[in-house]
Amino acid sequence: MQYNFAAGVSSLKPSIIREILKSSGNTIPLAAGNPAPDAFPVDDIKKIVNEVLETSPILALQYGISEGYGPLVETLTELAKNRYGIGSENDGLIVVSGAQQVMSLMSQCFINYGDTVLCEEPSFIGALNCFRSYGANLSGVPVDADGMNIAALEEKLKTEKNVKFIYTIPNFQNPAGVTMSLEKRKAVYELAKKYGVLVLEDNPYGDLRIAGEPVPAIKSFDEEGVVVYSGSFSKIVAPGIRVGYVLAPKEVIAKLTVAKQTQDVHTPLISQLVVYKWLTECDFEAHIAKICEIYKRKCNLLCDCVDKELGDFLTYNRPEGGLFVWAKLNDGIDMLDFCRKCSAAGASVVPGNAFMVDGDAECSYIRLNFSTPSDEDIVKGVKILGDVARSL
Amino acid sequence: MQYNFAAGVSSLKPSIIREILKSSGNTIPLAAGNPAPDAFPVDDIKKIVNEVLETSPILALQYGISEGYGPLVETLTELAKNRYGIGSENDGLIVVSGAQQVMSLMSQCFINYGDTVLCEEPSFIGALNCFRSYGANLSGVPVDADGMNIAALEEKLKTEKNVKFIYTIPNFQNPAGVTMSLEKRKAVYELAKKYGVLVLEDNPYGDLRIAGEPVPAIKSFDEEGVVVYSGSFSKIVAPGIRVGYVLAPKEVIAKLTVAKQTQDVHTPLISQLVVYKWLTECDFEAHIAKICEIYKRKCNLLCDCVDKELGDFLTYNRPEGGLFVWAKLNDGIDMLDFCRKCSAAGASVVPGNAFMVDGDAECSYIRLNFSTPSDEDIVKGVKILGDVARSL
Repeated sequence: MQYNFAAGVSSLKPSIIREILKSSGNTIPLAAGNPAPDAFPVDDIKKIVNEVLETSPILALQYGISEGYGPLVETLTELAKNRYGIGSENDGLIVVSGAQQVMSLMSQCFINYGDTVLCEEPSFIGALNCFRSYGANLSGVPVDADGMNIAALEEKLKTEKNVKFIYTIPNFQNPAGVTMSLEKRKAVYELAKKYGVLVLEDNPYGDLRIAGEPVPAIKSFDEEGVVVYSGSFSKIVAPGIRVGYVLAPKEVIAKLTVAKQTQDVHTPLISQLVVYKWLTECDFEAHIAKICEIYKRKCNLLCDCVDKELGDFLTYNRPEGGLFVWAKLNDGIDMLDFCRKCSAAGASVVPGNAFMVDGDAECSYIRLNFSTPSDEDIVKGVKILGDVARSL
Repeated sequence: MQYNFAAGVSSLKPSIIREILKSSGNTIPLAAGNPAPDAFPVDDIKKIVNEVLETSPILALQYGISEGYGPLVETLTELAKNRYGIGSENDGLIVVSGAQQVMSLMSQCFINYGDTVLCEEPSFIGALNCFRSYGANLSGVPVDADGMNIAALEEKLKTEKNVKFIYTIPNFQNPAGVTMSLEKRKAVYELAKKYGVLVLEDNPYGDLRIAGEPVPAIKSFDEEGVVVYSGSFSKIVAPGIRVGYVLAPKEVIAKLTVAKQTQDVHTPLISQLVVYKWLTECDFEAHIAKICEIYKRKCNLLCDCVDKELGDFLTYNRPEGGLFVWAKLNDGIDMLDFCRKCSAAGASVVPGNAFMVDGDAECSYIRLNFSTPSDEDIVKGVKILGDVARSL
């Protein structure tokens, strides 16, 4: 039988990163994006799950409402207000099955085939592929050391047709590692207002700051209902439980809720109860402090190794947080050839073109991850990269 | 700000059933569709979750692959083959976040705005709303006592444009309660082949048979790759964990997997591990036998009460399984008025128009559920319905 796929997905390819990871069994995973396993609050989760199944098994196992477990929704609304300074009486909040689902719900609710999404370039492949699958016209805005290039953004807003939203990861961007300055955040907000388009602010890494000072979320300026904020527990609790949330103007939340009903009815209750009890019974700030120490150590280790082994072959900026280092190979090094040889030599990195709107265009960047490999493997892995670079 | 939603969702309403349930705090929930809480294998799940978090916490908490936990995929493939007689070497299988996600993945992968989906009428509102949200042209095929009307189906296949798939729930259909005959299943398969469209076979209730003999799945005839089969653990283990699976031709599975990456990356590992260990370590057949006894008792109780209290006001057929009774109110009774009065009197039922392609058309059916209310509440609830009917 001939399968007649929808236009948006017919040319879509699986995420190159997930494909690399599936086939990179024995290589050192500098290509990955998994949080460090020793950052998971395993004992807390064990205790919570036992307690939940002992005291409220039917709550944990029965259907729930699409908006999410009521007390968790309230707790997250408070957290958003008190810790992140976001959310007003015009906003609502629902629980989602990991922040990836926010990208999917936003696509389902806003993208007609051919509509435009403005995104940072480079950007998170999981979001770009999601928008692509709905037939979005992706239009990339270059990322400077302090975030989106604002002149380029305004030019796109002037010229692109049917722009539905601006997609940004303002903190420790994946893959570029940069953090958007306060001035640029304000500028993005003002431009969104001026041109009547939404901002989709994706903040999975915001709590993983290892240097510098926090910058207010774009959502914190939102008085006109133009910002949809996506939060995640994948990097601060654990990704395998798949819990995130979306905070957005009530009218948008109402549609996202209907879309969520059609996607998976609701997020698993055990996962929601883990996050609820973890937030209300465990020490959030102590845990964040602990995992930031882990990531600071691993980030510095990777960067020190890169300086030593690859200093002659690439340039990069040390990130102030997150999980990634984005490095530009020197002129004369064939990036794809380098990545292939590294993988063959035993250490996988992600070719930068994976994060581009046009994956076939010339690209000299690679993405390195320091959260997944052990400290020992970071040292070994970067040594392999150095050996490959010297052999070219 | 003026929100410019996508065409498919802009007119979409929340599921009337989920809305009824949210606001029906104190009424007897004959409108619901929740499995009976005493059908959940609570002790098994407690034991499994403790064991998993004790022995494999990182597996349970880290990211997984979008296809699903490998050993679970293998176990489900074997279960499909050995228990349900479905799946060949041309098929693949992935784990999904409840069977609802199959509807969503199929929509994302196949429906361009305006494409047609042929569905049974009445049908499951969660599936219909999902297809609608992608801008599908829903076209309804009447349901006889032995399943889809085949002449009407062929007429639609001849006349409707861009038909992407035929959506059917062949066992104990929601809401009609009917089971499609073997002859009709073969006819649906042959028509799908002849007209080059897929069949989406949704089988959440198949194991809940309380009378009669099992009928082979449409997927069991599939030699040409035309059937996509959706299975669920919501009714045989627990819905709150959100685990289902889809078995389909490999080329279709490849696209569904990419779409799944964009929706939620993967199904929570704790949920997957519960199902994996439950299937491999617990007694599947004994559990099914046990819960079928529960549903047989509750179904007979509801039907006996309906015969006694409402025998003069409606007609229906006793279902051979599933969770629902579909009843036609006698001429002269205003269905919506009846539903409203029942709700006000303390027992909620679903107005049948909720399950129709055109929800505004005249409809004299109601859906009754026997799995959610306690036995005592079934008696009380139907008594309330009888009082309302007599008062009209």
